[in-house]
Amino acid sequence: MDNVISHIEANFNNYVEELKDYIRIPSISTLESHKPEMQRCAEFVQKKLFDAGMTKAEIFQTAGHPIVYGERIESTDLPTVLIYGHYDVQPVDPLDLWNNPPFEPIISDGKIWARGANDDKGQAYTHFKAVEAFYQVNGKLPVNVKFLIEGEEEIGSSNLSKFLKEQSELLKCDAILISDTSMYDVGVPTITYGLRGLLYMEVEVTGPNRDLHSGSFGGSVANPINELAKIISKLQDKNGKATIPNFYKDVQKLTKTERENFKKLKHSDKEFAKEVDVKLLQGEAGFSTLERLWVRPTLDCNGIVGGFTEKGAKTVLPSKALAKISMRLVPDQDPKKIAKDFEKHIKSLAPKSVKVDVRMIHYGYPVVAPVNNDAIKAAAEACSKAFGRKTVFTREGGSIPIVVDLMKSLKAPAILMGLGIDSDNIHSPNEHFRLENFQKGILSSAYFLNEFSKRK
Amino acid sequence: MDNVISHIEANFNNYVEELKDYIRIPSISTLESHKPEMQRCAEFVQKKLFDAGMTKAEIFQTAGHPIVYGERIESTDLPTVLIYGHYDVQPVDPLDLWNNPPFEPIISDGKIWARGANDDKGQAYTHFKAVEAFYQVNGKLPVNVKFLIEGEEEIGSSNLSKFLKEQSELLKCDAILISDTSMYDVGVPTITYGLRGLLYMEVEVTGPNRDLHSGSFGGSVANPINELAKIISKLQDKNGKATIPNFYKDVQKLTKTERENFKKLKHSDKEFAKEVDVKLLQGEAGFSTLERLWVRPTLDCNGIVGGFTEKGAKTVLPSKALAKISMRLVPDQDPKKIAKDFEKHIKSLAPKSVKVDVRMIHYGYPVVAPVNNDAIKAAAEACSKAFGRKTVFTREGGSIPIVVDLMKSLKAPAILMGLGIDSDNIHSPNEHFRLENFQKGILSSAYFLNEFSKRK
Repeated sequence: MDNVISHIEANFNNYVEELKDYIRIPSISTLESHKPEMQRCAEFVQKKLFDAGMTKAEIFQTAGHPIVYGERIESTDLPTVLIYGHYDVQPVDPLDLWNNPPFEPIISDGKIWARGANDDKGQAYTHFKAVEAFYQVNGKLPVNVKFLIEGEEEIGSSNLSKFLKEQSELLKCDAILISDTSMYDVGVPTITYGLRGLLYMEVEVTGPNRDLHSGSFGGSVANPINELAKIISKLQDKNGKATIPNFYKDVQKLTKTERENFKKLKHSDKEFAKEVDVKLLQGEAGFSTLERLWVRPTLDCNGIVGGFTEKGAKTVLPSKALAKISMRLVPDQDPKKIAKDFEKHIKSLAPKSVKVDVRMIHYGYPVVAPVNNDAIKAAAEACSKAFGRKTVFTREGGSIPIVVDLMKSLKAPAILMGLGIDSDNIHSPNEHFRLENFQKGILSSAYFLNEFSKRK
Repeated sequence: MDNVISHIEANFNNYVEELKDYIRIPSISTLESHKPEMQRCAEFVQKKLFDAGMTKAEIFQTAGHPIVYGERIESTDLPTVLIYGHYDVQPVDPLDLWNNPPFEPIISDGKIWARGANDDKGQAYTHFKAVEAFYQVNGKLPVNVKFLIEGEEEIGSSNLSKFLKEQSELLKCDAILISDTSMYDVGVPTITYGLRGLLYMEVEVTGPNRDLHSGSFGGSVANPINELAKIISKLQDKNGKATIPNFYKDVQKLTKTERENFKKLKHSDKEFAKEVDVKLLQGEAGFSTLERLWVRPTLDCNGIVGGFTEKGAKTVLPSKALAKISMRLVPDQDPKKIAKDFEKHIKSLAPKSVKVDVRMIHYGYPVVAPVNNDAIKAAAEACSKAFGRKTVFTREGGSIPIVVDLMKSLKAPAILMGLGIDSDNIHSPNEHFRLENFQKGILSSAYFLNEFSKRK
């Protein structure tokens, strides 16, 4: 084991260069125009899996972007770890807010800056290198390893769900290892045991059949932007609660123990507000910030557009206005049920003077993992060793819709070994990843593989 | 006079070709990138003024786009008509809704289709040709004529206001003739005696200092789109009245006579709703559609944008959201006073968890012209002759902010001899102008110049 650790430390600079090459491929899954880059990125992943000692590494084409699968089975007596990650990244707009071109990674201030540096190229790549280190030092791995790296996480993983159903035998494992979440704070190793689900909807309001002159028509017909604004304003009440009927019906109540555990983390609202530069935090009444982020559902507009949006003035009364509205869900909310209630609710809020279309873009179930599981215990121990500090257990506000699917399909626990920091700007301009976390992530992964081999 | 009329009829096809050339210059005043086209368009206007017999035609540079002025003074004994128009046009987005490229005019269904075909290249060009016809037939004009054609009407005419103050002696006249409004209906000659004013504002809401991941942060900080929507939703009450303090304080009450005159016009709400394809009209309670359009102030969002607006999904909690909000004003509302009240009101509606910037883009005063004036009577008579039907007097919902300035600076009545039809899609895709109105507009102008020469 010591040799493996020294090997990782000796080769770390090479790992950073390889990660840069990985990042340079602009694998934005939501943009139709980037399809060739997705294929190129899948091929990059395949090559790196062979480098890591996989005896098999295949690109599976799907109706969307390809899935890359690799495996090395040492022995049927050994436990099997499936490592999940995604090679797709978020779009990069607004481009003018980036300090460097988003797909030209730079190292500065001990961090690597680029789209995907963290989410999820950087985080997932730690496991590639931990496995490779064992393979290069010992010629074999301490456990059986499978890699499942998809290209549609940022757009809902719909083709992976199908793949899981079809390939459950191939993917069979004892634990699912995922690095795609955040640490509680810099230097604090963290295992996340709960993730919020997601429901992403679009609401389109149509007024007149064409854009009208607001002088000739203003005051006589409903304005779709004003009406959409009214609808949005009614989606939350004064206490910050969503007004969708039955929205809170299946929400698990926060236990006393959990509430107390959260309090122990000593979250500072003041620092949090300072970090994002707001005078005042805002959220659901009756809950602390960590509770609002981890165990309570929310509703946010992710985008809105209508009428004239360039510089200057155009006195148009637009025909249409569109909003993208997503809800973060918690156990046991069911996104499919809520989608129906949402649609009904939106339609009930709109006046007869406009038409309203409600569309579901994608969804994911919320998840809470068992914390008393052997695999999770081994992971916590591994992280403590790598970071030199006791691992904390947290929940997280974000969603990895596929985690529930993975756990259900493969009947194995998911270990969310997060290496990001909340201020790393994932999904924003100037995304970055701390090199320290990249290195300690590789070490955590190595310690885990070794530790887990003794547990089964 | 008969010779002039026949000359116009004989040359009409040439006039249409010339108008096409005029339209082909994409003179969008609000787009910085189109500055060279604005100069090119001003030069086109200058040339056409010389063609019309002007002894002087000058391009005046301003801090923005050039102003073109031309004159032909026949005799100090004759009355002077100043013809106002604008060579700038509105932007063309959304491009995909146009049936032909917006700056490649086509003739179809008896109409000319293009941006500017109507507003205001087509309408104003009628006077160029009426004047030219007198000049070509008689070698002289029945009255003194001045042309004032500006390039900033669609963006607030701010440099023309300055020009009017500096050049009031040069521009001195007995009547101001303007074709930039609508006819009450197809075939019904119309003089508009009232125009609404305009106040165009921008409201920008800023939440966190950068775009955030809606999973990691959603529920804990205010979302600027949601907050902007709440602000907009509070700008109008259930009766469709603006909630801005003092907004209605200076609004002139509708007189009984005016209300009755409007009723006589037999406006059909049903047809109006059908034409724009809405199930139900919507506006200020207690007023008819014509009243809502002509004599009541309104508030409309002309544009809104924030967060991710492309196809697909991005789970962003955006840093900013922006709305463009304009108010149509009626006598005696003062846009400058209302701008201040609007800003105060918006700021009072926003929670402390966000920052709000309120900016004024431009404004124009509302106007009502005297209907018992000689010039307006001459114009009504001229239109009746050209269209073969009695001229009606209307008010209009749109604004030509400069009209008030013109009337005040030049101490002369404005004649709003509208040639558009409300369904002509000005400011929208597929703007068009009826060739019949183009021709009868030239005839109306010619009859007016002749008629007015006898009146002073």
